[in-house]
Amino acid sequence: MQITLEDILGFDKQYRTNLINGLSGIKSAFLIGTTNANAQHNLAIFSNVVHIGANPPLLGFIHRPVSVEKHTYENIKANGKFTLNHVPEALYKAAHQSSARFDRSTSEFEACGFTPWFSEKHLAPYVSESPIKIGLNLEEEIEIKSNQTLLIIGRVQEIWIAEQLLHADGFIEINKAQTALVHGLETYFKPSFIERLPYAKAN
Amino acid sequence: MQITLEDILGFDKQYRTNLINGLSGIKSAFLIGTTNANAQHNLAIFSNVVHIGANPPLLGFIHRPVSVEKHTYENIKANGKFTLNHVPEALYKAAHQSSARFDRSTSEFEACGFTPWFSEKHLAPYVSESPIKIGLNLEEEIEIKSNQTLLIIGRVQEIWIAEQLLHADGFIEINKAQTALVHGLETYFKPSFIERLPYAKAN
Repeated sequence: MQITLEDILGFDKQYRTNLINGLSGIKSAFLIGTTNANAQHNLAIFSNVVHIGANPPLLGFIHRPVSVEKHTYENIKANGKFTLNHVPEALYKAAHQSSARFDRSTSEFEACGFTPWFSEKHLAPYVSESPIKIGLNLEEEIEIKSNQTLLIIGRVQEIWIAEQLLHADGFIEINKAQTALVHGLETYFKPSFIERLPYAKAN
Repeated sequence: MQITLEDILGFDKQYRTNLINGLSGIKSAFLIGTTNANAQHNLAIFSNVVHIGANPPLLGFIHRPVSVEKHTYENIKANGKFTLNHVPEALYKAAHQSSARFDRSTSEFEACGFTPWFSEKHLAPYVSESPIKIGLNLEEEIEIKSNQTLLIIGRVQEIWIAEQLLHADGFIEINKAQTALVHGLETYFKPSFIERLPYAKAN
């Protein structure tokens, strides 16, 4: 069955949102932790997290236009710090709840039942329950001209990970971490390991 | 266990590559199809595909600096067309093989065992075996200053999807599509459905 651009533009908003959000597939769910100048903590679920580079270590995420939602963005701009926390599979409902519109004075940590945790070196709050926690400094902010969406890039400052998740060659055995995946805006999955393949070579 | 930025910069290259590539988690695997001016087709696996916006319908993907690998990029620049094809779970090994360095005159379709398929309206080749095929026109190209990586954004022109994968509200029932997920550069997973949650509301 073919769906054309004309069809897409003609769909009602909810149908189009569901359809297009689903096209990019399934992704690991992340909770992004930030803090503001009044030491109020913010936590929000994001799924559009990408690898930008290994040296220097850079990760990015897509942030909706700041006219729409902005606590995470404002906090990152204010102090340059954020955390990316893989969502434990058992807590996907709590993580999803962080997408609700809480007012600025509400900590989503408390409202959703997560425990903020701090390292000595990084201002932004980590999610204590997360098996893979990443602390980042804002490195680059890019506005996508097509629709004013932002690509926020951070430089990894520290990683907190259980030692048994690390293979001897640096590979993260994420299959042992029991983390949640999300599809579109609201559908949760867990990963089933198939196989680690060797580096591909042309014959 | 803590790993600091200093640790990361001090690791040997392979260890660092494995570790940092794993941080961004698990993602749907895609085959990107393109064609050049000599009508030679190219196919390459990508996993850093993101949702940019629903209206207009925009998807993006991260492309390594063009000094490193460039057939996909060159083809997109030459004619402005590409396809994103979800990888069938049963064909993850063939999809992985497309990451090998084939020379320009080799079609990865043939070399890896995929069938090129064309719609009347879109120049770039689709992967016939894929259950969700997306045809896009180049919309925007962004160079990330931090490391010269590119974010390539396309506007969806058409979607080819089996009707039984589409829920009445536009949601794609990807759990029925049996597509593959990838973690880091080489580890494959399949998704296990947990639950579709309602839109989250603050109490």
